[in-house]
Amino acid sequence: MQTIDLNSDVGESFGAYTIGNDEEVLQHVSSANIACGFHAGDYNVMMDTVKLAHSLGVSIGAHPGFPDLGGFGRREMKMSEEEIFNLVVYQVGAIQAAATVCGTNVKHVKPHGALYNMASTDRKMADAIAKAVYTVNSDLILFGLAGSELVRAGEAVGLTVAQEVFADRTYQPDGTLTPRSYPNAMIHDVNVAAKRVLRMVKEKKVKAVNGQDIAIQADTICVHGDGPEALQFVQTLREKLLTENIHIQPIGVACP
Amino acid sequence: MQTIDLNSDVGESFGAYTIGNDEEVLQHVSSANIACGFHAGDYNVMMDTVKLAHSLGVSIGAHPGFPDLGGFGRREMKMSEEEIFNLVVYQVGAIQAAATVCGTNVKHVKPHGALYNMASTDRKMADAIAKAVYTVNSDLILFGLAGSELVRAGEAVGLTVAQEVFADRTYQPDGTLTPRSYPNAMIHDVNVAAKRVLRMVKEKKVKAVNGQDIAIQADTICVHGDGPEALQFVQTLREKLLTENIHIQPIGVACP
Amino acid sequence: MQTIDLNSDVGESFGAYTIGNDEEVLQHVSSANIACGFHAGDYNVMMDTVKLAHSLGVSIGAHPGFPDLGGFGRREMKMSEEEIFNLVVYQVGAIQAAATVCGTNVKHVKPHGALYNMASTDRKMADAIAKAVYTVNSDLILFGLAGSELVRAGEAVGLTVAQEVFADRTYQPDGTLTPRSYPNAMIHDVNVAAKRVLRMVKEKKVKAVNGQDIAIQADTICVHGDGPEALQFVQTLREKLLTENIHIQPIGVACP
Amino acid sequence: MQTIDLNSDVGESFGAYTIGNDEEVLQHVSSANIACGFHAGDYNVMMDTVKLAHSLGVSIGAHPGFPDLGGFGRREMKMSEEEIFNLVVYQVGAIQAAATVCGTNVKHVKPHGALYNMASTDRKMADAIAKAVYTVNSDLILFGLAGSELVRAGEAVGLTVAQEVFADRTYQPDGTLTPRSYPNAMIHDVNVAAKRVLRMVKEKKVKAVNGQDIAIQADTICVHGDGPEALQFVQTLREKLLTENIHIQPIGVACP
Repeated sequence: MQTIDLNSDVGESFGAYTIGNDEEVLQHVSSANIACGFHAGDYNVMMDTVKLAHSLGVSIGAHPGFPDLGGFGRREMKMSEEEIFNLVVYQVGAIQAAATVCGTNVKHVKPHGALYNMASTDRKMADAIAKAVYTVNSDLILFGLAGSELVRAGEAVGLTVAQEVFADRTYQPDGTLTPRSYPNAMIHDVNVAAKRVLRMVKEKKVKAVNGQDIAIQADTICVHGDGPEALQFVQTLREKLLTENIHIQPIGVACP
Repeated sequence: MQTIDLNSDVGESFGAYTIGNDEEVLQHVSSANIACGFHAGDYNVMMDTVKLAHSLGVSIGAHPGFPDLGGFGRREMKMSEEEIFNLVVYQVGAIQAAATVCGTNVKHVKPHGALYNMASTDRKMADAIAKAVYTVNSDLILFGLAGSELVRAGEAVGLTVAQEVFADRTYQPDGTLTPRSYPNAMIHDVNVAAKRVLRMVKEKKVKAVNGQDIAIQADTICVHGDGPEALQFVQTLREKLLTENIHIQPIGVACP
Repeated sequence: MQTIDLNSDVGESFGAYTIGNDEEVLQHVSSANIACGFHAGDYNVMMDTVKLAHSLGVSIGAHPGFPDLGGFGRREMKMSEEEIFNLVVYQVGAIQAAATVCGTNVKHVKPHGALYNMASTDRKMADAIAKAVYTVNSDLILFGLAGSELVRAGEAVGLTVAQEVFADRTYQPDGTLTPRSYPNAMIHDVNVAAKRVLRMVKEKKVKAVNGQDIAIQADTICVHGDGPEALQFVQTLREKLLTENIHIQPIGVACP
Repeated sequence: MQTIDLNSDVGESFGAYTIGNDEEVLQHVSSANIACGFHAGDYNVMMDTVKLAHSLGVSIGAHPGFPDLGGFGRREMKMSEEEIFNLVVYQVGAIQAAATVCGTNVKHVKPHGALYNMASTDRKMADAIAKAVYTVNSDLILFGLAGSELVRAGEAVGLTVAQEVFADRTYQPDGTLTPRSYPNAMIHDVNVAAKRVLRMVKEKKVKAVNGQDIAIQADTICVHGDGPEALQFVQTLREKLLTENIHIQPIGVACP
């Protein structure tokens, strides 16, 4: 039986500010990327989200980002590799303690926003992140864009990696995501998206925007929970995967 | 042989801002209370300070504070017990990861500033802090003002506690510190201070401001490293303790 | 003809976080209290909100708060009077520049959350706020809780003040608001609320929770825009006031 | 008689953190660039620094920066032109109010750190800054790197500009500063520095690192106050200028 992981970014509310629909989306995914208080989230939201994910049997991951609440971690920041290393260690440590308190463990790390994107192509940043994760706990699984430098850095340092694909995004011939600013960047039709995901999982291929087939490894699929449309998308995608006998479960769990 | 711990607050620099004289003061103390990025410190400073303390054989402690960089954690903030709990878990977790990366462990937790002061008399806050520390790691030692609610809360939850005394401060008849705003709050003469400390360690007594002897338990002495005068104070105090055959070492270390 | 001002707190979104329903509520009020980037809002949100309020003919006010985004300015912070003074000057200055850029002026200042509440009873804090507002621009109108120390401080320093009442809150016999934690704090029925407001405006009286009539001066009514229910409340209240021939307009505008 | 302005960045302390030596350096300069609470400074420090500068007869300027206290505004941040505009308006407004309270006016604006550097070559950013300054108050003088896009943007929008030179830095043949990471970036000998400055002022020329003379307009010289060496540098430079009959005074002041 084939398996796939569904992951979503959660725990991004802050103080009086609510963002996303964590209670809903956590019903549908197998892995939760929980913000750690830098780009979003705070110590209260993080604890509550770890507790909620754990109670729903969702695998818990750290979602570290740049220290930029005002920009939601989406703005590129120039930092030394040492600073990137320290930044990741700090945030992973903070959520590890929350997991301990909730009687569970952090299982994976997925960098957020600009940190994720920059580390997809900047190998030095990717190495700093991978080294931080490995040094804190070599059993952690590193999530990175399929085919990216972050995936390669994780493998090089000795981590288990999960190659991430996006159900609602198109790909360039070189395997990178089509930038959101492009008109054909997004896939809104969940049927189209599901077919693409199924092909990525079963045939390890996806059609790029120029019509060419490219090789892709899909270990985990990123989905979103902001808004009723996004939730419907996740639910439908999930059903279609199950219909095709693809089991949804976290990375690193033995097949039943 | 009698032993005593000397502790100091360090790692309180932030970004381009330097505060204190960590490299000097860490030469003289046995325990370091390292800021965790809320009231002071940041992920870079914290990592560097853990590394430095470890390389000097100084025992590493978390120094969590209120999220108030602008007020250096000295302003009282009203928070629920749950928020206090989460706040402490987060900061202790962050420094635990830094310690792991440096090949060492966090040994103790000493709350900072207003968090420390409020928890000295507010038992609910003290309980929240003690519970947070215990739940993250029940082997951690909780530092609290000698005779305070924080010490009692730590004992109640099952933690090892260290009762903290201040070499350069006077005491009220009820065992609390004379507020800094009072003219007789501070002891500037290191000889007087050393004599008082020796008596606290050997006789478990100190003379309060009204001349009356009060009982006090001195497990650890707080000293400061800001400025040449403070450093001289520490050095002299240390020498006087050694002369009296009082060994300076971290709490929880077996006597030689 | 009698007039009354309807005011609402707006511009409290921050970066990627949206709070409130500014576009809707600004259709219904005569005065906007715009967050200045300390307890909520940021330089982008503030500018956009000033622009929006101005385009809708709503009078523009500064809504300064404590520097506590994590607590939305609702947590009490201990500050010196000098710091309170500086805090208010800074925030009022920032929004004055935004108003200049939008071709308009700041007309009033209403402190937010804990700053507002503390200044209602703490005369020194109230004096610091009033002095800050007066020194920056003596033409500014100071909004304060009806009958509060803030109102008295504003009058003492020579400012025009607007006494603020709350349509959806009950009053204690001493004229203070019933704390939100009390079961009878809120008035949910807009018909009841409207009747009370009409009586405050026309008779300068309101029935306290003990059934006793107390004197009250209502220059401006605080309303909220968060959620469809709140918006419906504002709309209905507005209609009822107009039906009773009470004109809704900002403070300080000459009657037509 | 020839005149020149000496300017220095001040007011960059924050809360409990002190940076620089403002009381000393303000004795020696004619213009103060005062941090506005984003990259450094806070509402208290800003007010105190405006007061101090004004009491010493030093011309007051806004020194807006990126919202990045952790990076002291030295990290490049990607922002839209609209956001840059809003950012500058906010900070200039805040210090204008402080100046009003102190009975004086803001006379100039000098962007800080990465904002200054990016605007030296990025015309769109430069235009956003210039437009912000002009719209808030068209009488403000914009300080920019001599020959930079920021200077050109200021002129284009109709502002008075001051071309800034650096006494302790070398120049590339294209008129840009030699990056600090280069071995020959800094000039440590104040005699050499003073001769270069005199030539810039009198002949409007400076020798670039390749030995070639380049044209340069020197309206204001940037000096530093951090450390006794820096202060000595300023003092000596000042004396040498006076000896050569070059009067030190703010931009825009009529010659005596």
